[in-house]
Amino acid sequence: MSTPAQLDSALGAWLDANDQRLHDDLFEFLRIPSVSARSEHTKDVRAAAEWLHRHLARIGFATETLDTPGHPVVLAEWRKAPKGAPTVLIYGHYDVQPAEPLELWTSPAFEPTIRNGNIYARGSVDDKGQLWLHVAALEAHLAARGTLPVNVIVLAEGEEEVGSEHLAPFIEQHKQRLACDAVVISDSTMFAPGIPSILSSLRGLAYLQVDVTGPNSDLHSGMYGGAVVNPATALARIVASFHDAEGRVAIPGFYDKVRPFPDAVRKGMRALPFDEAEFTQHLAVDALGGEPGYTTLEKLWTRPTCEVNGLLSGYTGEGAKTVLPGQAMLKVSCRLVPDQDPAEIGRLLEAHVRKVAPKGVTVKVTHLHGGNAWRAELEGPLYDAAARALHGAFGRAPVITGEGGSIPVVGDFASILGAPVLLIGFGLPGENAHAPDEWISQENFRKGMRAVASLWDELRT
Amino acid sequence: MSTPAQLDSALGAWLDANDQRLHDDLFEFLRIPSVSARSEHTKDVRAAAEWLHRHLARIGFATETLDTPGHPVVLAEWRKAPKGAPTVLIYGHYDVQPAEPLELWTSPAFEPTIRNGNIYARGSVDDKGQLWLHVAALEAHLAARGTLPVNVIVLAEGEEEVGSEHLAPFIEQHKQRLACDAVVISDSTMFAPGIPSILSSLRGLAYLQVDVTGPNSDLHSGMYGGAVVNPATALARIVASFHDAEGRVAIPGFYDKVRPFPDAVRKGMRALPFDEAEFTQHLAVDALGGEPGYTTLEKLWTRPTCEVNGLLSGYTGEGAKTVLPGQAMLKVSCRLVPDQDPAEIGRLLEAHVRKVAPKGVTVKVTHLHGGNAWRAELEGPLYDAAARALHGAFGRAPVITGEGGSIPVVGDFASILGAPVLLIGFGLPGENAHAPDEWISQENFRKGMRAVASLWDELRT
Repeated sequence: MSTPAQLDSALGAWLDANDQRLHDDLFEFLRIPSVSARSEHTKDVRAAAEWLHRHLARIGFATETLDTPGHPVVLAEWRKAPKGAPTVLIYGHYDVQPAEPLELWTSPAFEPTIRNGNIYARGSVDDKGQLWLHVAALEAHLAARGTLPVNVIVLAEGEEEVGSEHLAPFIEQHKQRLACDAVVISDSTMFAPGIPSILSSLRGLAYLQVDVTGPNSDLHSGMYGGAVVNPATALARIVASFHDAEGRVAIPGFYDKVRPFPDAVRKGMRALPFDEAEFTQHLAVDALGGEPGYTTLEKLWTRPTCEVNGLLSGYTGEGAKTVLPGQAMLKVSCRLVPDQDPAEIGRLLEAHVRKVAPKGVTVKVTHLHGGNAWRAELEGPLYDAAARALHGAFGRAPVITGEGGSIPVVGDFASILGAPVLLIGFGLPGENAHAPDEWISQENFRKGMRAVASLWDELRT
Repeated sequence: MSTPAQLDSALGAWLDANDQRLHDDLFEFLRIPSVSARSEHTKDVRAAAEWLHRHLARIGFATETLDTPGHPVVLAEWRKAPKGAPTVLIYGHYDVQPAEPLELWTSPAFEPTIRNGNIYARGSVDDKGQLWLHVAALEAHLAARGTLPVNVIVLAEGEEEVGSEHLAPFIEQHKQRLACDAVVISDSTMFAPGIPSILSSLRGLAYLQVDVTGPNSDLHSGMYGGAVVNPATALARIVASFHDAEGRVAIPGFYDKVRPFPDAVRKGMRALPFDEAEFTQHLAVDALGGEPGYTTLEKLWTRPTCEVNGLLSGYTGEGAKTVLPGQAMLKVSCRLVPDQDPAEIGRLLEAHVRKVAPKGVTVKVTHLHGGNAWRAELEGPLYDAAARALHGAFGRAPVITGEGGSIPVVGDFASILGAPVLLIGFGLPGENAHAPDEWISQENFRKGMRAVASLWDELRT
């Protein structure tokens, strides 16, 4: 159990006194429609970068806006901490998802509006609000005390919502300059209101397409049916072989490299207040599924999967067409956990498909996409400091959560810079990050500023 | 073995003498673009009916063109045969398939052209040429001998290529008038050049759609994968349960009502000169499939099937999208043989699907289409007469063939009129019935006229 950090009173007083202005600034930031996916918003994306640049420079950071082949990176540095102090890198993004469908927003997407203690706007929680609370905490230190206890690099990109294509090369290119002792990212959610959370794991991915080809064209199912291997049936039998009857993945070697999660982490996950009945009801299903022997959260956060993402064969329109398809297509992806290797899992899956495919069809396997799983080491000064800081700001010790999806940049920071990554997010379930009526809670915005302001002091301690 | 019939010399001489005129008339018929599927050809369809009406009236038939809710039926009768003579009904259709893509025709679709002894035109073999050779044979009898040995009804419809929707009600409505001892249809192909064929079986159909629904929307495969039953995986496992490992249909009760084909018929089919290697090569597959213990022709003609016609779930576009689909759709159809009942097979399939579907998904089964299988009784005066007539015209005894597809009107004639149906077609493999460069061989056109002219004499004998 962590002990709660006590926020320095000067920082607390400054944040209290400037609360309205910090809201106003955030609202200005949120009004810029920096939709990275749409070329008509290219100028807005740059405007958001410039807005951020101005504010980082204003609070005392040496700031640059660096071009990439896509949207620019804002890079700001403050390196005047006492000798021996650690250097931290704060990562965030200033681009946002498209706001469409606009008619489903209660208030306009780019006109921030407070309702019921939540700030509604596109980007409020993903990620402008969470990036801005970091900037505010840095300003609190510099304004209230004239200094920071650690050296700080702020790196904000404008392409997170379109795949961060140019970020890994950027980190690689500026590797020396970005060298640091810790990477801190706030772009995730807490487990539940009032429960601060450290996100400790992300799943990796191996995504494949399987094309099964039978006869050289679609055939008449009457004239040929019963004498030819049907590629759709063959594909269905291949897919059926991916799991055993209980729901375990049945691809030989699939689980071999899985490194079990520590008992303490599993125990913590089992203790989380997760309502399986509500989850089931929310999805409108009569039962959940998956691998036996694990709770739902363990299945989502700690176990690998093999899921069909798409199927296509033959006639799929209205009514009846008596075609015996010439081809059948499968999209399938495995979510991975440490230490599964995406390339190796792809090879195992391909070998399995080729082995079970019947004579009479040919199989083509295309490896579309892969990404490494990531798991934090849940000990050391960075995590201890984070636990104390979150405990102090939220009044309770943080829980350890996982994430079933992937955030590729986390692995990039960890592997290129060799620094531990800390994921502390202040969003909440239901925040509509990529949907209409996106919001961040004002309470979490305020407690988030306090938590990260405190974190820098705790890191120095 | 049949003995060859000897065509009456007066009939033979008349057919020889009128060969050019019979060709010319057929060409005129073929020039009418009576495409029943296209509303812009409605007038042409009627023009073809009127053309046929004129010719049937000219040769001495009492002829009417009767409207239906769709295209008209031409009904012609000649009932002056000696007392006690049988009545035969000749069925054919004067509508044709669309000719598109026009650019793939070597000569224009509606300008009949002879090349290498074949008449190329849309409708040449399907079915104007085969209908016309019947009219020519009737004219031979009436012109050369002034009479026919049997009473004859000619029924020609204009909706065969669009599903014969109004034909069964028409037959039902005119049941008394259409009462007959035999129905003769020439709208099929011979097994091979020089080998006259009696088509003795058609498969039936039970066509279903299965919709598997899991969660109430598509989910993120990272955030939910591993904890939810994937409807696409569930559907694949359902499809995989349709067959055993050897290729037999594994739906309980599926084969219960199957009436085995007589040994003699199977023996005949096995004796047909069928080149399995060529068939395999033509389809560009490395092996054939299907139920063990049967030859390819037996599988196609005498055994029921369960074939996937379509599959659709999740993301099917280019590249990778990490979706866990909310739904998955299957189109599946069973080809049936006597005495399988389409409704019963549909029920068995639905019950099986519901039984094997896992918890966590719901299943909806829609019965889209059904049709009875049909099998000729291969004995009796009609078949003996046909065998002799074909043997005489082609110089060898006919073979018994089957057809893997369905021709629903055959079952309608058999069940509504209670008369045996004789299917003797004069098309050939590769005739391009529904494709560009459709053709009928002149040799088969001529031998076909002689065979059916002879048939009426043989029926009287």
